[in-house]
Amino acid sequence: MSKVFVDVGLSLDGFLAGPGRRPGHPLGDGGLAIHEWMFATAAFAERHGGDGGGGERGPDDELVRAVFARTGAYVMGRCMFDEGEVGWPEHAPFHAPVFVVTRHARAPWGRPGGTTFHFVTDGLASAMRQARAAAGERDVRVSGGADVIQQAFEDGHVDELTLHVAPVLLGQGLRLFDGMVATRCRFEPLAAAASPRVQHLHFRCVPRSLPTSEPRS
Amino acid sequence: MSKVFVDVGLSLDGFLAGPGRRPGHPLGDGGLAIHEWMFATAAFAERHGGDGGGGERGPDDELVRAVFARTGAYVMGRCMFDEGEVGWPEHAPFHAPVFVVTRHARAPWGRPGGTTFHFVTDGLASAMRQARAAAGERDVRVSGGADVIQQAFEDGHVDELTLHVAPVLLGQGLRLFDGMVATRCRFEPLAAAASPRVQHLHFRCVPRSLPTSEPRS
Repeated sequence: MSKVFVDVGLSLDGFLAGPGRRPGHPLGDGGLAIHEWMFATAAFAERHGGDGGGGERGPDDELVRAVFARTGAYVMGRCMFDEGEVGWPEHAPFHAPVFVVTRHARAPWGRPGGTTFHFVTDGLASAMRQARAAAGERDVRVSGGADVIQQAFEDGHVDELTLHVAPVLLGQGLRLFDGMVATRCRFEPLAAAASPRVQHLHFRCVPRSLPTSEPRS
Repeated sequence: MSKVFVDVGLSLDGFLAGPGRRPGHPLGDGGLAIHEWMFATAAFAERHGGDGGGGERGPDDELVRAVFARTGAYVMGRCMFDEGEVGWPEHAPFHAPVFVVTRHARAPWGRPGGTTFHFVTDGLASAMRQARAAAGERDVRVSGGADVIQQAFEDGHVDELTLHVAPVLLGQGLRLFDGMVATRCRFEPLAAAASPRVQHLHFRCVPRSLPTSEPRS
């Protein structure tokens, strides 16, 4: 059955992005270092580099390739889309339907290469339903930002989490888990692997019921 | 050659301990969950349980056992000692010399079972030297707290780091890496392993030179 997953890069001190984020600088100061392992892969070069040349093979490459292959649709928040609308190349790097959770209605926006952005104004649950339907047998990736990922965990939408932990310290920035404690999702370690550039942590997300008196923090 | 290592448990959101730490409650609210994987091991039960009964075998147990076996001496900060002086049993759980970095001179304090606390008033570098000498062929563990660990990284004393990441979110508390960016130690992923209770991340710490203008944060 189709799954919903979160797959994000973090610094060793838990940041999705460094300090000083602004339009055109979505990863903040130092934040590119979080993804250097991925930029080095052949899969990334093929997807983003145009001519398909360059990039390393090996376990990191296979992992990136598998994530691209399994994903039939994406869900993202408005801020991530706004940043990407400026920053992504004309051939947006998704090559699949992307459901953007937003308050602003807008007609679907198709890009060369198979990415179509759909703007969902009736909430995350609706975006998840539409993404599942669009993905068919393939999986749905909740791309970000942190607020949408947290909400997806809190609302019990997510089946799997992968963290790619880069061995860098950013000191400040945007944390994936900031302020998140009580969720309808319990994390169970599934597997872990190390490469010279990064460590990959895989978790199953298991639904749990919350006592109704438990505060959502 | 003898090595210096840091081996600590963290929550998934990067905390060494939860909020509300106070004397007699050193791990803070929820902090015990960080170490549940270790409490479940036979090695821990043997070391702390008195009769040596109970506890699970398997990879987590082997890892705990290996850490005990490799350690010839410990270095810790004053706060960790103060907490432990109250909280540890009469047979303190180190069974080796422990060098406490403190401003308060005090005669060595031997405990049944082979733990002797030595109080070092001339700084971390001196404690490291004394611990290396005491450990002989075995390794030196920098136990904590976070301030001593950070200083040991900053000063380039540490050869290896292991993080045991428990799949729990604490939301608040004491972070291992808070405020630490520029260090004389670069982290290189060595290995990673998952068990049902925890994920273990191993790093080599490689010295690097800092530009003298780089601020220590």
